[in-house]
Amino acid sequence: MDALKARIRAEGKVLPGNILLVDQFLNQQVDPVLIHDMAEHWYAQFADKNITKILTIEASGIAIAVFVAARFGVPLLFAKKYSSTNVTRESHEVSIYSYTKQETYRVAVSKRLLTEDDNVLIIDDFLANGQALKGLLDLCRQAGATVAGVGIAIEKIFQNGRDAVKSYGVEISSLARIESLDTEMGSMTFAED
Amino acid sequence: MDALKARIRAEGKVLPGNILLVDQFLNQQVDPVLIHDMAEHWYAQFADKNITKILTIEASGIAIAVFVAARFGVPLLFAKKYSSTNVTRESHEVSIYSYTKQETYRVAVSKRLLTEDDNVLIIDDFLANGQALKGLLDLCRQAGATVAGVGIAIEKIFQNGRDAVKSYGVEISSLARIESLDTEMGSMTFAED
Repeated sequence: MDALKARIRAEGKVLPGNILLVDQFLNQQVDPVLIHDMAEHWYAQFADKNITKILTIEASGIAIAVFVAARFGVPLLFAKKYSSTNVTRESHEVSIYSYTKQETYRVAVSKRLLTEDDNVLIIDDFLANGQALKGLLDLCRQAGATVAGVGIAIEKIFQNGRDAVKSYGVEISSLARIESLDTEMGSMTFAED
Repeated sequence: MDALKARIRAEGKVLPGNILLVDQFLNQQVDPVLIHDMAEHWYAQFADKNITKILTIEASGIAIAVFVAARFGVPLLFAKKYSSTNVTRESHEVSIYSYTKQETYRVAVSKRLLTEDDNVLIIDDFLANGQALKGLLDLCRQAGATVAGVGIAIEKIFQNGRDAVKSYGVEISSLARIESLDTEMGSMTFAED
Protein backbone atom coordinates (compact mmCIF):
# COMPACT_ATOMS: atom_id res chain seq x y z
CA MET A 1 0.00 0.00 0.00
CA ASP A 2 1.74 3.09 -1.32
CA ALA A 3 0.59 5.62 1.29
CA LEU A 4 1.93 3.51 4.17
CA LYS A 5 5.20 2.74 2.41
CA ALA A 6 5.74 6.41 1.67
CA ARG A 7 5.26 7.27 5.35
CA ILE A 8 7.65 4.53 6.44
CA ARG A 9 10.27 5.80 4.00
CA ALA A 10 9.81 9.42 5.09
CA GLU A 11 9.39 9.03 8.86
CA GLY A 12 10.44 5.50 9.88
CA LYS A 13 13.68 5.13 11.84
CA VAL A 14 15.85 2.02 11.87
CA LEU A 15 17.18 1.24 15.35
CA PRO A 16 19.54 -1.47 16.63
CA GLY A 17 17.90 -4.88 17.14
CA ASN A 18 16.03 -4.82 13.82
CA ILE A 19 13.57 -2.31 15.22
CA LEU A 20 11.69 -0.14 12.77
CA LEU A 21 10.45 2.84 14.73
CA VAL A 22 7.17 4.17 13.32
CA ASP A 23 6.01 5.94 16.46
CA GLN A 24 5.39 9.19 14.61
CA PHE A 25 2.38 7.96 12.65
CA LEU A 26 1.49 4.37 13.56
CA ASN A 27 2.13 3.09 17.06
CA GLN A 28 2.59 5.87 19.58
CA GLN A 29 1.40 8.83 17.60
CA VAL A 30 -1.28 7.67 15.17
CA ASP A 31 -2.42 9.44 12.00
CA PRO A 32 -6.15 8.75 11.68
CA VAL A 33 -6.16 9.66 7.98
CA LEU A 34 -3.55 7.03 7.20
CA ILE A 35 -5.26 4.25 9.17
CA HIS A 36 -8.60 5.18 7.64
CA ASP A 37 -7.02 4.47 4.24
CA MET A 38 -5.47 1.25 5.53
CA ALA A 39 -8.91 0.12 6.70
CA GLU A 40 -10.32 0.80 3.23
CA HIS A 41 -7.63 -1.38 1.72
CA TRP A 42 -8.44 -4.38 3.94
CA TYR A 43 -12.16 -3.82 3.44
CA ALA A 44 -11.75 -4.07 -0.32
CA GLN A 45 -9.94 -7.35 0.18
CA PHE A 46 -12.14 -9.04 2.81
CA ALA A 47 -15.56 -7.38 2.34
CA ASP A 48 -17.18 -10.56 0.99
CA LYS A 49 -16.00 -12.79 3.85
CA ASN A 50 -18.92 -12.16 6.24
CA ILE A 51 -16.61 -10.93 9.01
CA THR A 52 -18.35 -10.77 12.40
CA LYS A 53 -15.53 -9.35 14.50
CA ILE A 54 -12.12 -7.67 14.24
CA LEU A 55 -9.57 -9.14 16.66
CA THR A 56 -6.29 -7.56 17.78
CA ILE A 57 -3.98 -7.54 20.79
CA GLU A 58 -3.27 -4.64 23.10
CA ALA A 59 -1.85 -2.11 22.80
CA SER A 60 -0.51 -0.87 19.48
CA GLY A 61 -2.90 -2.82 17.26
CA ILE A 62 -5.98 -1.22 18.77
CA ALA A 63 -5.95 2.14 16.99
CA ILE A 64 -5.65 0.45 13.61
CA ALA A 65 -8.12 -2.34 14.31
CA VAL A 66 -10.93 -0.10 15.56
CA PHE A 67 -10.97 1.76 12.23
CA VAL A 68 -11.20 -1.57 10.44
CA ALA A 69 -14.09 -2.53 12.73
CA ALA A 70 -15.87 0.71 11.86
CA ARG A 71 -15.39 0.08 8.14
CA PHE A 72 -16.79 -3.46 8.38
CA GLY A 73 -19.57 -2.36 10.73
CA VAL A 74 -18.64 -5.00 13.33
CA PRO A 75 -17.21 -4.85 16.87
CA LEU A 76 -13.53 -4.65 17.66
CA LEU A 77 -12.25 -7.17 20.19
CA PHE A 78 -8.82 -6.96 21.74
CA ALA A 79 -6.95 -9.61 23.71
CA LYS A 80 -5.73 -8.21 27.02
CA LYS A 81 -2.60 -8.76 29.05
CA TYR A 82 -3.52 -11.42 31.58
CA SER A 83 -2.68 -9.57 34.80
CA SER A 84 -5.66 -7.25 34.40
CA THR A 85 -8.14 -7.86 37.20
CA ASN A 86 -10.89 -6.61 34.91
CA VAL A 87 -10.65 -9.80 32.87
CA THR A 88 -12.96 -12.37 34.36
CA ARG A 89 -11.75 -15.92 34.86
CA GLU A 90 -13.95 -17.18 32.06
CA SER A 91 -11.40 -16.47 29.36
CA HIS A 92 -9.52 -18.10 26.56
CA GLU A 93 -5.84 -17.69 27.37
CA VAL A 94 -2.48 -18.20 25.64
CA SER A 95 1.19 -17.53 26.40
CA ILE A 96 3.16 -15.38 23.95
CA TYR A 97 6.93 -15.02 23.89
CA SER A 98 8.11 -11.55 22.98
CA TYR A 99 11.52 -11.53 21.30
CA THR A 100 11.62 -7.74 21.61
CA LYS A 101 11.08 -7.73 25.37
CA GLN A 102 12.57 -11.22 25.87
CA GLU A 103 9.78 -12.34 28.14
CA THR A 104 6.66 -14.47 28.09
CA TYR A 105 3.33 -12.84 28.79
CA ARG A 106 -0.19 -14.19 28.92
CA VAL A 107 -3.11 -12.71 27.05
CA ALA A 108 -6.77 -13.45 27.44
CA VAL A 109 -10.08 -12.81 25.76
CA SER A 110 -13.46 -13.38 27.32
CA LYS A 111 -15.28 -16.58 26.36
CA ARG A 112 -18.44 -14.49 26.17
CA LEU A 113 -16.91 -12.29 23.47
CA LEU A 114 -15.18 -14.79 21.17
CA THR A 115 -17.23 -17.85 20.24
CA GLU A 116 -17.73 -20.48 17.56
CA ASP A 117 -20.23 -18.14 15.92
CA ASP A 118 -17.46 -15.68 15.06
CA ASN A 119 -15.74 -15.26 11.72
CA VAL A 120 -12.73 -13.17 12.59
CA LEU A 121 -10.42 -10.79 10.76
CA ILE A 122 -7.20 -10.42 12.78
CA ILE A 123 -5.45 -7.03 12.54
CA ASP A 124 -2.05 -6.02 13.95
CA ASP A 125 0.55 -3.34 13.38
CA PHE A 126 3.57 -5.66 12.91
CA LEU A 127 4.29 -9.19 11.81
CA ALA A 128 7.85 -10.05 12.85
CA ASN A 129 8.54 -13.53 14.23
CA GLY A 130 4.82 -14.31 14.35
CA GLN A 131 4.48 -15.11 18.05
CA ALA A 132 1.74 -12.54 18.73
CA LEU A 133 -0.19 -13.64 15.63
CA LYS A 134 0.20 -17.30 16.63
CA GLY A 135 -1.26 -16.38 20.03
CA LEU A 136 -4.28 -14.72 18.43
CA LEU A 137 -4.80 -17.69 16.12
CA ASP A 138 -4.63 -20.03 19.12
CA LEU A 139 -7.22 -17.92 20.97
CA CYS A 140 -9.54 -18.29 17.98
CA ARG A 141 -8.89 -22.02 17.87
CA GLN A 142 -9.73 -22.33 21.59
CA ALA A 143 -12.95 -20.41 20.98
CA GLY A 144 -13.86 -22.48 17.94
CA ALA A 145 -14.01 -19.26 15.93
CA THR A 146 -13.18 -19.19 12.22
CA VAL A 147 -10.36 -16.94 11.02
CA ALA A 148 -11.25 -15.39 7.67
CA GLY A 149 -7.93 -13.60 7.25
CA VAL A 150 -5.15 -11.53 8.76
CA GLY A 151 -4.35 -7.89 8.03
CA ILE A 152 -0.87 -6.66 8.95
CA ALA A 153 0.38 -3.10 8.55
CA ILE A 154 4.12 -3.83 8.39
CA GLU A 155 5.63 -7.28 7.82
CA LYS A 156 9.34 -7.75 8.52
CA ILE A 157 9.66 -10.72 6.20
CA PHE A 158 13.26 -11.50 7.24
CA GLN A 159 11.94 -12.52 10.68
CA ASN A 160 9.86 -15.32 9.14
CA GLY A 161 6.58 -14.72 10.97
CA ARG A 162 4.65 -16.06 7.98
CA ASP A 163 6.38 -19.44 8.32
CA ALA A 164 5.59 -19.56 12.04
CA VAL A 165 1.86 -19.52 11.32
CA LYS A 166 1.91 -21.46 8.03
CA SER A 167 0.16 -24.46 9.57
CA TYR A 168 -2.94 -22.36 10.32
CA GLY A 169 -3.51 -21.89 6.59
CA VAL A 170 -4.81 -18.32 6.84
CA GLU A 171 -4.61 -15.61 4.20
CA ILE A 172 -2.28 -12.80 5.32
CA SER A 173 -2.52 -9.34 3.77
CA SER A 174 0.45 -7.11 4.63
CA LEU A 175 0.36 -3.49 3.49
CA ALA A 176 4.12 -2.96 3.62
CA ARG A 177 6.64 -5.80 3.42
CA ILE A 178 10.15 -5.02 4.63
CA GLU A 179 12.87 -7.24 3.16
CA SER A 180 15.77 -5.87 5.19
CA LEU A 181 16.78 -3.19 7.67
CA ASP A 182 20.27 -1.75 7.77
CA THR A 183 20.99 -0.32 11.20
CA GLU A 184 24.31 1.26 10.26
CA MET A 185 22.97 3.01 7.20
CA GLY A 186 19.55 3.60 8.78
CA SER A 187 18.03 2.30 5.56
CA MET A 188 15.42 -0.26 4.59
CA THR A 189 14.42 -2.28 1.54
CA PHE A 190 10.84 -3.14 0.68
CA ALA A 191 10.08 -6.59 -0.74
CA GLU A 192 8.55 -5.13 -3.90
CA ASP A 193 11.47 -2.78 -4.57
CA MET B 1 -24.71 11.23 27.04
CA ASP B 2 -27.82 9.11 26.70
CA ALA B 3 -26.53 6.46 24.27
CA LEU B 4 -23.62 5.56 26.53
CA LYS B 5 -25.72 5.52 29.68
CA ALA B 6 -28.27 3.26 28.01
CA ARG B 7 -25.54 0.80 27.05
CA ILE B 8 -24.10 0.83 30.58
CA ARG B 9 -27.55 0.14 32.01
CA ALA B 10 -28.25 -2.65 29.55
CA GLU B 11 -24.84 -4.37 29.36
CA GLY B 12 -22.66 -3.13 32.25
CA LYS B 13 -21.93 -5.57 35.06
CA VAL B 14 -21.13 -4.56 38.63
CA LEU B 15 -18.33 -6.69 40.11
CA PRO B 16 -16.76 -6.78 43.59
CA GLY B 17 -14.19 -4.04 44.20
CA ASN B 18 -16.32 -1.26 42.70
CA ILE B 19 -15.58 -2.55 39.23
CA LEU B 20 -18.01 -1.67 36.47
CA LEU B 21 -17.44 -4.17 33.70
CA VAL B 22 -18.16 -2.67 30.28
CA ASP B 23 -16.07 -5.10 28.27
CA GLN B 24 -18.93 -5.89 25.92
CA PHE B 25 -18.97 -2.50 24.20
CA LEU B 26 -16.22 -0.23 25.52
CA ASN B 27 -12.95 -1.71 26.74
CA GLN B 28 -12.39 -5.21 25.48
CA GLN B 29 -15.03 -5.46 22.82
CA VAL B 30 -15.60 -2.01 21.35
CA ASP B 31 -18.66 -0.80 19.43
CA PRO B 32 -17.38 1.63 16.79
CA VAL B 33 -20.83 3.18 16.32
CA LEU B 34 -21.04 4.11 19.99
CA ILE B 35 -17.56 5.62 20.17
CA HIS B 36 -18.18 7.49 16.93
CA ASP B 37 -21.11 9.17 18.68
CA MET B 38 -19.02 9.82 21.79
CA ALA B 39 -16.39 11.52 19.63
CA GLU B 40 -19.11 13.77 18.13
CA HIS B 41 -20.15 14.78 21.62
CA TRP B 42 -16.65 15.88 22.65
CA TYR B 43 -16.12 17.57 19.30
CA ALA B 44 -19.20 19.71 19.85
CA GLN B 45 -17.80 20.71 23.21
CA PHE B 46 -14.13 21.36 22.36
CA ALA B 47 -14.21 22.19 18.62
CA ASP B 48 -13.28 25.85 19.17
CA LYS B 49 -10.24 25.10 21.36
CA ASN B 50 -7.66 24.70 18.57
CA ILE B 51 -6.74 21.19 19.69
CA THR B 52 -3.47 19.95 18.13
CA LYS B 53 -3.37 16.44 19.58
CA ILE B 54 -5.48 13.85 21.40
CA LEU B 55 -3.63 12.20 24.29
CA THR B 56 -4.54 8.94 26.02
CA ILE B 57 -2.84 6.09 27.85
CA GLU B 58 -2.57 2.49 26.72
CA ALA B 59 -4.51 0.31 26.41
CA SER B 60 -8.23 0.77 26.85
CA GLY B 61 -8.34 4.50 26.05
CA ILE B 62 -6.87 4.03 22.59
CA ALA B 63 -9.94 2.82 20.70
CA ILE B 64 -11.98 5.75 21.97
CA ALA B 65 -9.28 8.38 21.56
CA VAL B 66 -8.41 7.53 17.96
CA PHE B 67 -12.02 8.24 16.90
CA VAL B 68 -11.81 11.58 18.67
CA ALA B 69 -8.54 12.28 16.84
CA ALA B 70 -10.22 11.50 13.53
CA ARG B 71 -13.11 13.84 14.34
CA PHE B 72 -10.77 16.71 15.24
CA GLY B 73 -8.47 15.96 12.30
CA VAL B 74 -5.39 15.75 14.53
CA PRO B 75 -3.04 12.91 15.56
CA LEU B 76 -3.69 10.56 18.44
CA LEU B 77 -0.83 10.16 20.90
CA PHE B 78 -0.78 7.47 23.54
CA ALA B 79 1.48 7.18 26.57
CA LYS B 80 3.13 3.76 26.72
CA LYS B 81 4.04 1.45 29.55
CA TYR B 82 7.67 2.19 30.30
CA SER B 83 9.14 -1.28 29.86
CA SER B 84 8.67 -1.17 26.10
CA THR B 85 12.05 -1.16 24.40
CA ASN B 86 10.48 0.64 21.48
CA VAL B 87 10.25 3.81 23.55
CA THR B 88 13.45 5.76 23.11
CA ARG B 89 15.17 7.22 26.14
CA GLU B 90 14.20 10.72 25.13
CA SER B 91 10.84 10.58 26.86
CA HIS B 92 8.71 12.39 29.37
CA GLU B 93 7.98 9.87 32.12
CA VAL B 94 5.73 9.59 35.17
CA SER B 95 4.83 6.97 37.77
CA ILE B 96 1.18 6.02 38.17
CA TYR B 97 -0.27 4.01 41.04
CA SER B 98 -3.07 1.68 40.00
CA TYR B 99 -5.55 1.01 42.80
CA THR B 100 -7.14 -1.72 40.67
CA LYS B 101 -3.89 -3.64 40.18
CA GLN B 102 -2.30 -2.34 43.40
CA GLU B 103 0.99 -1.58 41.73
CA THR B 104 2.97 1.35 40.43
CA TYR B 105 3.85 1.46 36.77
CA ARG B 106 5.74 3.96 34.66
CA VAL B 107 4.46 5.46 31.45
CA ALA B 108 6.32 7.48 28.90
CA VAL B 109 5.71 9.61 25.87
CA SER B 110 8.35 10.71 23.39
CA LYS B 111 9.69 14.26 23.77
CA ARG B 112 9.56 14.49 19.99
CA LEU B 113 5.81 13.86 20.00
CA LEU B 114 4.57 16.01 22.89
CA THR B 115 5.94 19.55 23.02
CA GLU B 116 5.18 23.07 24.17
CA ASP B 117 3.52 23.69 20.80
CA ASP B 118 0.76 21.23 21.65
CA ASN B 119 -2.72 22.05 22.87
CA VAL B 120 -3.99 18.73 24.10
CA LEU B 121 -7.38 17.11 24.64
CA ILE B 122 -6.95 14.16 27.01
CA ILE B 123 -9.33 11.21 26.49
CA ASP B 124 -9.77 8.12 28.65
CA ASP B 125 -12.37 5.42 29.24
CA PHE B 126 -12.63 5.77 33.03
CA LEU B 127 -12.07 8.40 35.69
CA ALA B 128 -11.96 6.65 39.08
CA ASN B 129 -9.39 7.83 41.62
CA GLY B 130 -7.72 10.05 39.06
CA GLN B 131 -4.20 8.60 39.17
CA ALA B 132 -3.98 7.83 35.45
CA LEU B 133 -5.36 11.27 34.56
CA LYS B 134 -2.92 12.92 36.97
CA GLY B 135 -0.11 11.05 35.21
CA LEU B 136 -1.23 12.32 31.79
CA LEU B 137 -1.53 15.88 33.12
CA ASP B 138 1.99 15.61 34.56
CA LEU B 139 3.32 14.38 31.21
CA CYS B 140 1.81 17.47 29.57
CA ARG B 141 3.30 19.68 32.28
CA GLN B 142 6.75 18.15 31.71
CA ALA B 143 6.38 18.76 27.99
CA GLY B 144 5.18 22.33 28.50
CA ALA B 145 2.06 21.43 26.53
CA THR B 146 -1.27 23.13 27.22
CA VAL B 147 -4.24 20.98 28.24
CA ALA B 148 -7.42 22.32 26.66
CA GLY B 149 -9.69 19.81 28.34
CA VAL B 150 -10.36 16.23 29.39
CA GLY B 151 -12.97 13.87 27.96
CA ILE B 152 -13.92 10.85 30.06
CA ALA B 153 -16.36 8.13 29.02
CA ILE B 154 -17.36 6.93 32.51
CA GLU B 155 -16.66 8.82 35.72
CA LYS B 156 -17.08 6.94 39.01
CA ILE B 157 -17.64 10.09 41.03
CA PHE B 158 -17.60 8.30 44.40
CA GLN B 159 -13.87 7.58 43.86
CA ASN B 160 -13.11 11.32 43.81
CA GLY B 161 -10.83 11.44 40.78
CA ARG B 162 -12.00 14.97 40.01
CA ASP B 163 -10.67 16.18 43.38
CA ALA B 164 -7.32 14.48 42.76
CA VAL B 165 -6.72 16.65 39.69
CA LYS B 166 -8.51 19.81 40.89
CA SER B 167 -5.24 21.74 41.21
CA TYR B 168 -4.63 21.42 37.45
CA GLY B 169 -7.72 23.52 36.75
CA VAL B 170 -8.79 21.64 33.63
CA GLU B 171 -12.31 21.29 32.26
CA ILE B 172 -13.49 17.67 32.52
CA SER B 173 -16.32 16.40 30.34
CA SER B 174 -17.67 13.02 31.46
CA LEU B 175 -20.29 11.33 29.30
CA ALA B 176 -21.68 9.10 32.07
CA ARG B 177 -21.28 9.89 35.78
CA ILE B 178 -21.81 7.00 38.17
CA GLU B 179 -22.83 8.00 41.68
CA SER B 180 -22.77 4.54 43.23
CA LEU B 181 -22.36 0.86 42.46
CA ASP B 182 -24.11 -1.82 44.48
CA THR B 183 -22.21 -5.08 44.17
CA GLU B 184 -24.82 -7.19 45.98
CA MET B 185 -27.71 -5.93 43.92
CA GLY B 186 -25.60 -5.61 40.77
CA SER B 187 -27.11 -2.15 40.34
CA MET B 188 -25.83 1.37 39.69
CA THR B 189 -27.04 4.93 40.11
CA PHE B 190 -26.17 7.72 37.69
CA ALA B 191 -25.42 11.18 39.08
CA GLU B 192 -28.18 12.79 37.06
CA ASP B 193 -30.82 10.22 38.10
